[in-house]
Amino acid sequence: MLNFDFYNPTHILFGKGRIADLSRVVPADARVLVLYGGGSIKSNGVLDEVRQALSGHAVQEFSGIEPNPSYETLMRAVELVRNEKLDFLLAVGGGSVIDGTKFVAAAADFEGDPWSILEKRGANVVRALPFGSILTLPATGSEMNNGSVVTRKSLKAKMAFSSVHVFPKFSILDPAKTFTLPVRQIGNGVVDAYAHVMEQYMTYPVNSPVQDRFAEGILQTLIEEGPKALADPDDYDVRANVMWCATLALNGLIGAGVPQDWATHMVGHELTALYGLDHAQTLAIVLPSMLQVRKESKRAKLLQYAERVWGLKDGDEESRIDGAIEKTRNFFEQMGVKTRLTDYALGAENIDAVLSQLKSHRMVTLGERRDVTLAVSRQVLELSI
Amino acid sequence: MLNFDFYNPTHILFGKGRIADLSRVVPADARVLVLYGGGSIKSNGVLDEVRQALSGHAVQEFSGIEPNPSYETLMRAVELVRNEKLDFLLAVGGGSVIDGTKFVAAAADFEGDPWSILEKRGANVVRALPFGSILTLPATGSEMNNGSVVTRKSLKAKMAFSSVHVFPKFSILDPAKTFTLPVRQIGNGVVDAYAHVMEQYMTYPVNSPVQDRFAEGILQTLIEEGPKALADPDDYDVRANVMWCATLALNGLIGAGVPQDWATHMVGHELTALYGLDHAQTLAIVLPSMLQVRKESKRAKLLQYAERVWGLKDGDEESRIDGAIEKTRNFFEQMGVKTRLTDYALGAENIDAVLSQLKSHRMVTLGERRDVTLAVSRQVLELSI
Repeated sequence: MLNFDFYNPTHILFGKGRIADLSRVVPADARVLVLYGGGSIKSNGVLDEVRQALSGHAVQEFSGIEPNPSYETLMRAVELVRNEKLDFLLAVGGGSVIDGTKFVAAAADFEGDPWSILEKRGANVVRALPFGSILTLPATGSEMNNGSVVTRKSLKAKMAFSSVHVFPKFSILDPAKTFTLPVRQIGNGVVDAYAHVMEQYMTYPVNSPVQDRFAEGILQTLIEEGPKALADPDDYDVRANVMWCATLALNGLIGAGVPQDWATHMVGHELTALYGLDHAQTLAIVLPSMLQVRKESKRAKLLQYAERVWGLKDGDEESRIDGAIEKTRNFFEQMGVKTRLTDYALGAENIDAVLSQLKSHRMVTLGERRDVTLAVSRQVLELSI
Repeated sequence: MLNFDFYNPTHILFGKGRIADLSRVVPADARVLVLYGGGSIKSNGVLDEVRQALSGHAVQEFSGIEPNPSYETLMRAVELVRNEKLDFLLAVGGGSVIDGTKFVAAAADFEGDPWSILEKRGANVVRALPFGSILTLPATGSEMNNGSVVTRKSLKAKMAFSSVHVFPKFSILDPAKTFTLPVRQIGNGVVDAYAHVMEQYMTYPVNSPVQDRFAEGILQTLIEEGPKALADPDDYDVRANVMWCATLALNGLIGAGVPQDWATHMVGHELTALYGLDHAQTLAIVLPSMLQVRKESKRAKLLQYAERVWGLKDGDEESRIDGAIEKTRNFFEQMGVKTRLTDYALGAENIDAVLSQLKSHRMVTLGERRDVTLAVSRQVLELSI
């Protein structure tokens, strides 16, 4: 096992009816900004519930945070926070709204140009406004971590930052609030969570059996519950299991003490920045090919994955590994997320542009062994056509 | 899945050489009291390392915290903290030292008689001194939770309290510091961690597959690594895996959203209070009989446990359940912890006294269904002879 630090102070309030707890966990004297995306929280009643729970508080609202939240939009929220001297943020939505709120929290009090927060990946953040979240879309894990990804549209740049100062103070997870999600978002969410686990699990062995089993436990649960979430959208327990898995997939726990990869995410980010694909779509395209191309360096874990997650015990090593990768691809397709560039009207002609983006973002040695060069990324993308 | 809150702000620093980080995580201006037990941290060099890492700080020491820390001893530490106006505590040791330090932290600043903290199970704790820990004995999980058990010798009472104010600020876990532990303490620690998992897992199903798999993952890892920890006391990875499992077994994670039992612990506490048995010895005595007596109400989970943890898939239900309970008992014995009252020179003649203690502590309806009456506890103890 590798040395590690684990620290995660976010208070999770999980279950039916928990939005009512808002009045208890938001400080009574807070001047609150509620941040959200489009209209879904209006039509499904979540916004009304939030307003009611905060009825004793000073509250303003900021809407219009888009999927892949943009620096441009978020800076308008920063301006509002500063002008109105707001001191507590409440994100209501999915990972994009929460990621965006983290940036607003860090930028509102930041001395200097907030763009440098993203350029320096958060290393220059020394404080942030306190904030909580109400999660309506299980996927990114942002509700229980201190990471954020923000896109600067004008530069086609999708940039990540993290800071110990941007853990949510609390996150409210009510699985019933996910009943009205479109099928596409449920599918995307399951694929996103699955890929998060794989980035922390599918590397090389360091004798960390309990981390491995936790990771495998999340993967198996997503494989079982994900299709049920599509088939029975009103099944509370299924939605609860998917929601808690997505949080556990990226709250630091399964990655503690083990090597991590993240090459799939880095290549995927460029596909979103260039062509506007959903984050999960990019992961579904890149991950199976990434495993195929890097089969040798991941051999031991791929064999373990094949056996423990997919039950593939017979046949030679090659066929078990190929079988596990194929089953991974099929699972993404089963969740309604296509796994080929051509499914999104992209192809060989787009690969150079992706590589240029990776190069300009200095993503030239990715992965747990830093051996995913641009040439390897090219192979991966070619295999993803 | 049941509704739940999860909150755990303890910063874990895990791995080789992490005691050196003390100078960073203890506030520079703190007036520190280092609390420890007997002499083992003197002979194995841990105390010297701590002194060196804190060399720039104002530090005093308090030694003599016993296994099953006593109210009487801890109140002497409270007096020292108050007289010397100390403001940061550092527990160096195992669960007893950390549990004791939690009580000192809560009592030092408490208005009124600190005994009422235990009588009210911590509900009246409104603040506590900040404290950290250096764990030298993986077992109780106290390093990453907010629970504490304190014994008042004069009353033969072993009392638990918890409070959101007594999470350690940090805990340093260096597996290499466990190399010199006596065999008995390693065995006890593994049994203790195993029993903690069972109290949160072996109840009835509530459709919580990821919690189940995490629990099973810890159990499987303890079964694999525990005997290696006895056989190869200098194997760093083995000790690291046992240590992290013991922490994960009782940090709130696997118990989030599921029913919990704890009857075994309550009966065990009385055996310790009356006869001075090690905590883990009492669990090893009580748990197998507890499962046997309550087989019907735990049937579904016992069958799952038999299959997933012990690989028992064939034969009828009774034989699988009995087999799993027998394997549990054998595992405790393999870890060097005897599982019968008679192994500790106790027998039928002691059972009435245990039941009287349970009655006087109002432990008359225990377990996840509150159906472990005194009559059931009697059956369990009779089966444990």
